[in-house]
Amino acid sequence: MNATATDSNAITGRVFNFSAGPAAMPAPVLKQLQEELLCLPGAGASLMELSHRGQVFTDILHDAEGTIRALYGISDDYAVLFLQGGAALQFSMIPANLIRGNGKTAQYLVTGSWAKKALGEAKKEGNVEVIYDAKDSNYDHVPSPSDYKVREDAAYLYHCSNETIQGVQFGEEPACPAGVPLVCDASSDLLSRPLEINKYGILYACAQKNAGPAGVTVVIIRRDLLDHAPADLAGYMTYKNHADNDSMWNTPPTFAVWALGKVARWLADDIGGLEAMQKINEQKAKRLYDVIDSHREFYLGHAKAEYRSKMNVTFNLPSDELLGKFVKEAAANELASLKGHRSIGGIRASIYNAMPREGVEALASFMTDFASKNG
Amino acid sequence: MNATATDSNAITGRVFNFSAGPAAMPAPVLKQLQEELLCLPGAGASLMELSHRGQVFTDILHDAEGTIRALYGISDDYAVLFLQGGAALQFSMIPANLIRGNGKTAQYLVTGSWAKKALGEAKKEGNVEVIYDAKDSNYDHVPSPSDYKVREDAAYLYHCSNETIQGVQFGEEPACPAGVPLVCDASSDLLSRPLEINKYGILYACAQKNAGPAGVTVVIIRRDLLDHAPADLAGYMTYKNHADNDSMWNTPPTFAVWALGKVARWLADDIGGLEAMQKINEQKAKRLYDVIDSHREFYLGHAKAEYRSKMNVTFNLPSDELLGKFVKEAAANELASLKGHRSIGGIRASIYNAMPREGVEALASFMTDFASKNG
Repeated sequence: MNATATDSNAITGRVFNFSAGPAAMPAPVLKQLQEELLCLPGAGASLMELSHRGQVFTDILHDAEGTIRALYGISDDYAVLFLQGGAALQFSMIPANLIRGNGKTAQYLVTGSWAKKALGEAKKEGNVEVIYDAKDSNYDHVPSPSDYKVREDAAYLYHCSNETIQGVQFGEEPACPAGVPLVCDASSDLLSRPLEINKYGILYACAQKNAGPAGVTVVIIRRDLLDHAPADLAGYMTYKNHADNDSMWNTPPTFAVWALGKVARWLADDIGGLEAMQKINEQKAKRLYDVIDSHREFYLGHAKAEYRSKMNVTFNLPSDELLGKFVKEAAANELASLKGHRSIGGIRASIYNAMPREGVEALASFMTDFASKNG
Repeated sequence: MNATATDSNAITGRVFNFSAGPAAMPAPVLKQLQEELLCLPGAGASLMELSHRGQVFTDILHDAEGTIRALYGISDDYAVLFLQGGAALQFSMIPANLIRGNGKTAQYLVTGSWAKKALGEAKKEGNVEVIYDAKDSNYDHVPSPSDYKVREDAAYLYHCSNETIQGVQFGEEPACPAGVPLVCDASSDLLSRPLEINKYGILYACAQKNAGPAGVTVVIIRRDLLDHAPADLAGYMTYKNHADNDSMWNTPPTFAVWALGKVARWLADDIGGLEAMQKINEQKAKRLYDVIDSHREFYLGHAKAEYRSKMNVTFNLPSDELLGKFVKEAAANELASLKGHRSIGGIRASIYNAMPREGVEALASFMTDFASKNG
């Protein structure tokens, strides 16, 4: 097995895991979780066994929140919530809280599979308009501000900052009138780079890309948006309940929050913060895109160059036969989970925060070698 | 620290943890989770890092489901789902799927705090009737079949089989006409004793009492009930989506499902199944209730004797001073988390599956000693 599979933290049996999510986690975090799994020091029990109302877990939750607030400089104008149900439940919670029953209209930018799914759920809750849809170009780009026009009275403008399936990413926030809350599915983006939270109304992310294990979703929401929910909205779906109770309106997913807090702490202390993380991520992505660009006839990149995702590098090969061979030989070289999403096929190399440079280097070398042998 | 704190699996630093949930987990399960946390044998990565669509996790999920099906003899007429959002989301999902927009009426038995909360959410979704409420006796019992009458055309009859806060438990299922689906919050009951699943329409449980860590909820639902949801119901709230996709309509909480599967396997293999578990649990509960009954002036049991919970033993002491002293001295004896729920005070000893007999014995001895010194 790969001696460098987890950077400076080699663990026997681990390979380079390019899974799109649940995805690789930082090895130092996994080691800490393992060390403390049976008995959290001083607590007399595993973190999983502790009441969420006790001081130990309350401190852990507040620490996770505090670390995220510090990383992004999030002001008290925003609540930071830890919820369950993944991005899928957010697809419904956002319109249920902001447009159900009030006659307002939400506007959507559709740049790939995830924005499309969110749109489908929003239509059930109220008035929705699509003001940009990249389907005619098979979702190979995101729009420029001149490509769409947001209504001044829109309930919100929705977008997905990084489409993991197509591998396209917004380099900066969409253009949005001052009075319109900008809503962002940052599931595969949050913690991977700096973002100006003040530009957003709601920014959310399921954890299982850059932030931790599946089972917890971070929702950063401007507090004035907590008051729009209809009175008959399901309690769990009402953001205000969670905000008023510090994410403990009901039992939070305590283990996942614990792990997420450790990932955030690793990012702050070991990596050095979001700018440092962004730089590493950009270097990793560049390494792979450079190989693709050096073999344009062989590696067929999906995204237009200027909209390429730093998180999910998507490309195809000249034939299904070569595609199968690539996946098989990569796996034999301990480069795992490279098959593209079942909806579009091809190859997808997800290189989130926890993918070490060594893993990217190993994949880049393999790709160069594979192209020279098969191209 | 208590050498026997985890039965035959002593782990340094662990105490006897009587938390009501998240609650103690079986030590052999925690050890397995720890051993495999960094790298699942043969998988090349931690379970937390694997795609939920891959064969490894799919097998784990199916195995967890299969073990629960085998323990309860659940037929193919039922789907077994692993969801997020806890019991709190089920409070809304049940009425949203079964009464929203169809004019039918659901009936509720209110036997404590949890049934009451479920009722509150159901009222938002459609027509609801309370046909029994034990509030006048401060929720110290559950009703007999002669105490209520269920409509033949009810959408469902709802009850909570064990009220963790008050410590009252249904010994057997409520009386329910053949055509009315019986719905049960078995959050603190499932896996603690045999149940005849065929008597239920929906039986659900958040995991963090007897079944695993917080973050996953088991929903056992008769398949004919999957077809009642309104078309505009949020995708995540629609049971049919989860049933049609084998609990992978969206990313499930993979770590929690993994841990839950191990707990179910421990119950089947190490304990010997549900009858064996029930017997142990009854013995543990009897040991504590016997101490209470031997000191009737000192330990003031909350529940009427015949409705006492086998899971949550609730009682008070003659004064707040003695109550505080009890909690403090118990903690000094490594008997942790005995304070009652903040809503009713007193003492609550939660003795779910994973609380070893030694823990109950230690508490019983402490109680006898405390009463003789302070009574």
